[in-house]
Amino acid sequence: MALISKISQLEDEQLRAIAYMPTDYLSVLVASDAWLQFTDSDFMRIAVLLAEKSFLEGGCPIGAVVIDNVTRQILGKGHNTLVQESHPYNHGETSAMRDAGRVDFSQTTLFTTLSPCDVCASLLYMRGVSRVVVGDVTNANGNEGLLQEKGLTVDILEDEVGIALYARFRKEKPEQELEDWRGVSAVNAAR
Amino acid sequence: MALISKISQLEDEQLRAIAYMPTDYLSVLVASDAWLQFTDSDFMRIAVLLAEKSFLEGGCPIGAVVIDNVTRQILGKGHNTLVQESHPYNHGETSAMRDAGRVDFSQTTLFTTLSPCDVCASLLYMRGVSRVVVGDVTNANGNEGLLQEKGLTVDILEDEVGIALYARFRKEKPEQELEDWRGVSAVNAAR
Repeated sequence: MALISKISQLEDEQLRAIAYMPTDYLSVLVASDAWLQFTDSDFMRIAVLLAEKSFLEGGCPIGAVVIDNVTRQILGKGHNTLVQESHPYNHGETSAMRDAGRVDFSQTTLFTTLSPCDVCASLLYMRGVSRVVVGDVTNANGNEGLLQEKGLTVDILEDEVGIALYARFRKEKPEQELEDWRGVSAVNAAR
Repeated sequence: MALISKISQLEDEQLRAIAYMPTDYLSVLVASDAWLQFTDSDFMRIAVLLAEKSFLEGGCPIGAVVIDNVTRQILGKGHNTLVQESHPYNHGETSAMRDAGRVDFSQTTLFTTLSPCDVCASLLYMRGVSRVVVGDVTNANGNEGLLQEKGLTVDILEDEVGIALYARFRKEKPEQELEDWRGVSAVNAAR
C-alpha cells in the first residue's frame, strides 16, 4: 500500500522521498489517485528539492519535474548533472525529459526551478510541451516570450528557497555557473 | 602499439573499428600523431558509420564526431539513441557532445551526418563550437544560416552514403523519423 493516499498537507520529508525515489517506483510512495491532490506548488517544491540534492552533490542546483496534465502523476524528474555525469549540457529540463522518455509531451506540464536556456527552450517547443511553470525568473530569464510565441502556456511560480539556493550557488561557484550556461569556452575567455 | 600509425588510404574496416571503439580507448587503434592524416571526409565517414550502426540497431541513422581542431584527435562521437535508450531528444550532435564531456568546444569541429535541428543548433552555439561540418542538407536543412550568424564556421560536405541511408530510413519508418524530429505529439497529431 502506498504511503500517501489522503493528504492533509504535504511536508518536505514526504516531498523529498518523492524527489529521490526513481520515477518507475513512485507507486510505492503515492497512490495513483492521490496525485490529484498535489498542487503546482508541491511539484515546484519537489523540483527545488532535486535542485538541493544536486547542490549537496557539488553540482548545479537546478531541478525539474514533468507531470501528466490529467492524472497529475510524475512522468519524469531530474536535476542538472554537469558535475555528476561530467555532462556538458544536461540541465534540469533535459534531465527530467530524458527520465520521462518517449512520451507525448503535449499532454504534460514541466516545472523547472530556473528559467530555461536556449537549448532547453528549443527542446520544450520541439517536443510540444503544453505548459511550463518557471520557479525563478529573478536569477535568469529571457525565453518566456519565445515559448509563448511557440504556443506553450508559461506560468511563473517563484519559489523563494530555490531562488536563494541558486543565488548562493552563483556567488560561491561563479565559474561552474558560467560553464553550465555558456560552456568551458566562456570560462576560459573570462579568465 | 597502435594499429594505425602511417596511413596510405583509410578503408571502411579501419574507420568502422574507430567508430565502434569507446572514445577513451581510441589510442589502441590510432597513434596520436596519425590523427593529423585524417581528412574531413574520413571523419564524416566515421559519422556515417555511426549512423549505419544506429540503423542496424533499429534506431535513427544519424551520427556525429567531435574532433580537436589542432591535434585532429576524436574527443567524442555518437549516434541518435531515440530507440536504443528510449531517449526523447538524443540526436547525433548531442550524443557526440555528451561523449566529449566538459571540454572547450571552441577548440573543436563537429561533424554531423544530418543538418542540425533547433535544439542541436542552440547547443552548438551555446557551447561555442568553432566549426560544424554538415554531411546532408538534402534530407533536412535550415539552421546553417543561424549558426553562421552566431559566429560558427559552417561547411557542407555531403556524403552520398549517409544521404541514401537517411532517405531509406525516412521511407521505411516515417513515424519514427517524425517522432525524432517533432516528438510523439506530432506523430499522434498526424494520425
